[in-house]
Amino acid sequence: MKKHNFSAGPSILNHNVIKAAAESVIDINNLGLSLLEISHRSNDFIKIIEEAKSLIKDLLNINEQYEVLFLQGGASLQFYMSALNFAKRNGKAGYIDTGTWSSKAIDESKKVGETLILASSKDQNYTYIPEINEKIDNIDYLHFTSNNTIYGTQFHSFENISKIALANNTKLICDMSSDILSKEFDVNKFDLIYAGAQKNIGPAGTTLVIIRKDGFEKNNKLPTYLNYQTHIEKQSMFNTPPVFPIYVCLLTLRWIKKLGGIKSIEKNNIKKANLIYDEIDRNSLFYGIVKQKDRSNMNVTFQLKNKKHEDTFNKMCHAVGISGIYGHRSIGGYRASIYNALKTESIYVLIDVMQKLEQK
Amino acid sequence: MKKHNFSAGPSILNHNVIKAAAESVIDINNLGLSLLEISHRSNDFIKIIEEAKSLIKDLLNINEQYEVLFLQGGASLQFYMSALNFAKRNGKAGYIDTGTWSSKAIDESKKVGETLILASSKDQNYTYIPEINEKIDNIDYLHFTSNNTIYGTQFHSFENISKIALANNTKLICDMSSDILSKEFDVNKFDLIYAGAQKNIGPAGTTLVIIRKDGFEKNNKLPTYLNYQTHIEKQSMFNTPPVFPIYVCLLTLRWIKKLGGIKSIEKNNIKKANLIYDEIDRNSLFYGIVKQKDRSNMNVTFQLKNKKHEDTFNKMCHAVGISGIYGHRSIGGYRASIYNALKTESIYVLIDVMQKLEQK
Repeated sequence: MKKHNFSAGPSILNHNVIKAAAESVIDINNLGLSLLEISHRSNDFIKIIEEAKSLIKDLLNINEQYEVLFLQGGASLQFYMSALNFAKRNGKAGYIDTGTWSSKAIDESKKVGETLILASSKDQNYTYIPEINEKIDNIDYLHFTSNNTIYGTQFHSFENISKIALANNTKLICDMSSDILSKEFDVNKFDLIYAGAQKNIGPAGTTLVIIRKDGFEKNNKLPTYLNYQTHIEKQSMFNTPPVFPIYVCLLTLRWIKKLGGIKSIEKNNIKKANLIYDEIDRNSLFYGIVKQKDRSNMNVTFQLKNKKHEDTFNKMCHAVGISGIYGHRSIGGYRASIYNALKTESIYVLIDVMQKLEQK
Repeated sequence: MKKHNFSAGPSILNHNVIKAAAESVIDINNLGLSLLEISHRSNDFIKIIEEAKSLIKDLLNINEQYEVLFLQGGASLQFYMSALNFAKRNGKAGYIDTGTWSSKAIDESKKVGETLILASSKDQNYTYIPEINEKIDNIDYLHFTSNNTIYGTQFHSFENISKIALANNTKLICDMSSDILSKEFDVNKFDLIYAGAQKNIGPAGTTLVIIRKDGFEKNNKLPTYLNYQTHIEKQSMFNTPPVFPIYVCLLTLRWIKKLGGIKSIEKNNIKKANLIYDEIDRNSLFYGIVKQKDRSNMNVTFQLKNKKHEDTFNKMCHAVGISGIYGHRSIGGYRASIYNALKTESIYVLIDVMQKLEQK
């Protein structure tokens, strides 16, 4: 049976990407060797990583002031690494707290230096994106999470936050793990962007980093792997990179390019999100938990008004091949993650189940 | 044409492992989903990582005092992480310098605290394994690299070094990236063992860590990702693990188990190494660069006595499908990496080319 994969991550990949990825495991470039067993210093792999970086630059319209890196350790390692590289001695850092991921980033920053919470939506269990005061303390950098996968909130514009960073002469850092490549935005407003690959970029095992080369304090005393300068100088080849995950990222990037780039992806993502949110608002059995204007176009969180329908709804979802629809264990309910590769067809299948439940 | 893959890493994997890995990219457990697009919290993946850990414990005869982890960042991140976790405040660490990898580990240790070089083979360009004095300074831990992939040296016994660590009441740490799972040894002598997967364990993208749970100072102030305690408590699931690389490790571990375990693998590795070293010593055109008793059973380094034969030898190798045979750029010459998955047949093909070159 065909599956409709709403998993929050690792998440759905385009089926042609999956097919080509499987082929590469058997043989890459007709070498008579698997991609898994060739040297990362071989021309075959150098071409792969260079094309992947170049496509990131192309799709996101990134200029020569930035370096694109493929690292390891996920956003979780970036929480610490970003603070370590961007916090000046005796400096302060400012964070926007939108729950879980930003809270974890805040914890790591506290291990490096003074850490201010500039805004938080904790008062309403992170169901909205908080406003930031225009005048902020003298901080080294401002950090925020563009999309929260657990609560289903999203910054729909970076205009205000980047204006505040600029006015206060502070660096801007963003964890875009769950919405990069899903919509157009201006990379030039940022000094550092990082994203675990396992949502819109590829499979688990690599982390995309986009860094403004003159945007941070170089410091040779930092641990070598944790120093962005190391990876900039070595072009992501300081040590053996995660070869296969990077290749699957390349396949996904080629697919996005072929589809017409981010503009076209974004149009489709908005359409998909509107379809499902409209049904949540219309359907008498469900409600959304996030403030309307801050609803995520990637992770759609919703609940049943009456828990007694839960079993029936779960069974109906299962019967039509819907998978990965349950909410994060910390908030329960449902979460439909509708990343780039999820087809509109899968949205219609979910809506149909919701409507049939209501009709029952 | 069938390839004979002597690559130093990422390196050869068994062909049935490759086949099963490719199948998992299309579909895992008949779910109708690729392994790349399922949640790392799903039962399907939990079973994979648990079986992989359990097979490591089984194959290496590891008891309950140890935890097996699959992390990211390679040995390069472990260089720093091991020092950070094992160096007590104001303590000293002792290192055996056998070139490149241990030199890099030493550099990271210096960023953490005082670092002593207890022995080094630098005086003869790292072509032998140095002796260590029985009486050493009061150090927190003793670190060594069991096999050097670049020079082709290997500790053939851990008896002496573990006896010295015990007599001096110091922890013992080993980077076994290039020879773990290739021979039997007693894990109980060690407090920490780490190994990048991309030699004998699996593809690039994950790092095996075997850690004695009571062997290090717990410290909640450490960066969360860099704290072994984090990964021990979260059972390698603190953040999204590299799902596919771990699955390929599992496939390799199953293959080793089926072959009869490490004892059987070791017997075959010794046979392969003897065949090729015997030919190097017999053949009038070649010589080995490493002191005989310290020659690696994993990375066989050798040179042509007369460089004028280089072109012919390279062409002859290429013609029969030999790949990855060139020495590391820092020392040149040749390096035949003969990891677990390389068949004896490939050794015979290489020997045949060496003999034909001599006959010419």
